[in-house]
Amino acid sequence: MFNEDYLRYKELVERHLTDFLPEIDQQSATLYDAMKYSLTSGGKRIRPVLLLAACEFCGCDINQALPYAAAVEYIHTYSLIHDDLPSMDDDEMRRGKPTNHMVFGEDMAILAGDGLLSSAFEAMMKDMLLYFDNPDRLKCRVRAAYEIAKGAGCKGMVAGQVADIESQGKHCAREYIEYIHLNKTAALIVSSVKAGAYLACGEQDRLKALASYGEAIGLGFQIADDLLDIYGDSAAMGKSTGKDDAHKKCTFPAIYGAEESRQRLTDLTNKAIELMEPFYDEGEFFVTIAKRLAERNK
Amino acid sequence: MFNEDYLRYKELVERHLTDFLPEIDQQSATLYDAMKYSLTSGGKRIRPVLLLAACEFCGCDINQALPYAAAVEYIHTYSLIHDDLPSMDDDEMRRGKPTNHMVFGEDMAILAGDGLLSSAFEAMMKDMLLYFDNPDRLKCRVRAAYEIAKGAGCKGMVAGQVADIESQGKHCAREYIEYIHLNKTAALIVSSVKAGAYLACGEQDRLKALASYGEAIGLGFQIADDLLDIYGDSAAMGKSTGKDDAHKKCTFPAIYGAEESRQRLTDLTNKAIELMEPFYDEGEFFVTIAKRLAERNK
Repeated sequence: MFNEDYLRYKELVERHLTDFLPEIDQQSATLYDAMKYSLTSGGKRIRPVLLLAACEFCGCDINQALPYAAAVEYIHTYSLIHDDLPSMDDDEMRRGKPTNHMVFGEDMAILAGDGLLSSAFEAMMKDMLLYFDNPDRLKCRVRAAYEIAKGAGCKGMVAGQVADIESQGKHCAREYIEYIHLNKTAALIVSSVKAGAYLACGEQDRLKALASYGEAIGLGFQIADDLLDIYGDSAAMGKSTGKDDAHKKCTFPAIYGAEESRQRLTDLTNKAIELMEPFYDEGEFFVTIAKRLAERNK
Repeated sequence: MFNEDYLRYKELVERHLTDFLPEIDQQSATLYDAMKYSLTSGGKRIRPVLLLAACEFCGCDINQALPYAAAVEYIHTYSLIHDDLPSMDDDEMRRGKPTNHMVFGEDMAILAGDGLLSSAFEAMMKDMLLYFDNPDRLKCRVRAAYEIAKGAGCKGMVAGQVADIESQGKHCAREYIEYIHLNKTAALIVSSVKAGAYLACGEQDRLKALASYGEAIGLGFQIADDLLDIYGDSAAMGKSTGKDDAHKKCTFPAIYGAEESRQRLTDLTNKAIELMEPFYDEGEFFVTIAKRLAERNK
């Protein structure tokens, strides 16, 4: 049941993922190739899946949420392309394939990231034009897009990335680690579930539960990621491991060790489950996602 | 009169330029420093000035246009930061000061650009929330933001930058040069004037005139820039000259020589003037801007 739902959301997103990119001119065809290369390199699609699931959970037709689902995946993909650059994490492989700059060069990779970020907002605003005869729905869509902008921006993902870079090689206080993870990873996940709820003009109690849920699994997701970087199988993951240690990154396991990190991951997973259990069957998808994210091996 | 108006717009923009950035956390303070460094490094502020002037020309209070004026300057500034990077134009000086990556490092410069682009959209969408009780005005604002997104994105500025890079070292057809210039420079200028008109929910004839005007001066602006790169005084301009030739860039003067380029600049200026003359006194500011851009020496 869970797998079926996950696949239904994921396949819908993937089928329409490039639909919301502007129609690129032939003179800048390389831009499209570079954006598409990273967009179609696989991945769990967790953010758009959560957005669609939240939208459906709040009672809205998920087809109407597709431009926003694509937008969060564009934003996530741009962040990976820029993170992988030589002056950032300097990664050569991602999802089992050479990273964007290894294929298209550093200049084109920077522009592919810029293009994806711009396209995310362009897609959402183009969608808003379709709701000009329905001001109530229009407002819900503006709220959703604003939520995504906040999660992506300087009080969200970009802030987390800055703090992540600045923490390298330093001893970090627990608060600082939490800040990095909450922003670098959780922020856009929180935005995705909140945006899904907003698109459905969802009820306050569902919105609140989803927001806290998103934060818990977002933080848990990053702890699991950090643990995998140390103990994971690089072949299964399709990228090199041990990079955090090499960069002397400020991660949970690096500072607190594996055991405490695993305990924190368990606590966060339990918190996420508790938040969605009051919704019984309707919350089941989210409960299962929380469990699976904690158990994942890639 | 012209100078007074220009200064009035410019000072208003500069006084409020950082007001629409999200309040950055102390943990990511460097991000704010890096963004502010480039934002406050001077410049003509031509895009926000044109946005405000277009807004006023269409009969709206320019104070209500400030988040959008700031947004186009954030987008322009992000594009300069990314363009200056070692893997792009590799520029060390900009407006008489070291470029962003020379001061903050390449990683932080990439993130400062990403942060500014995100902040531009965040600022516009945050503003939209203020118009929820006025759906007509809200729609005008959505249109304005969409216009800016298009000008910045993969059918606008980013496309131009991609084509610019791909043209280096190749012989270009006239059409291709035009494509680069129209997108790299004119697109965001056109978006700025159109956004100003949309914000005022302006009349169609004014919007149309402004759009064609923006394209003419945008293209002219870039030709003037290319001429300055060859014949300009690098001290007066605050950046190095002769870079286009070194990069074997596909510019008007490089392909057609100075004389034909100057003629094209004159033609474009005259076209811009003709478009705004039918509005008599009200169009005077735009007429003068067109003349000044053609005559500028920095």
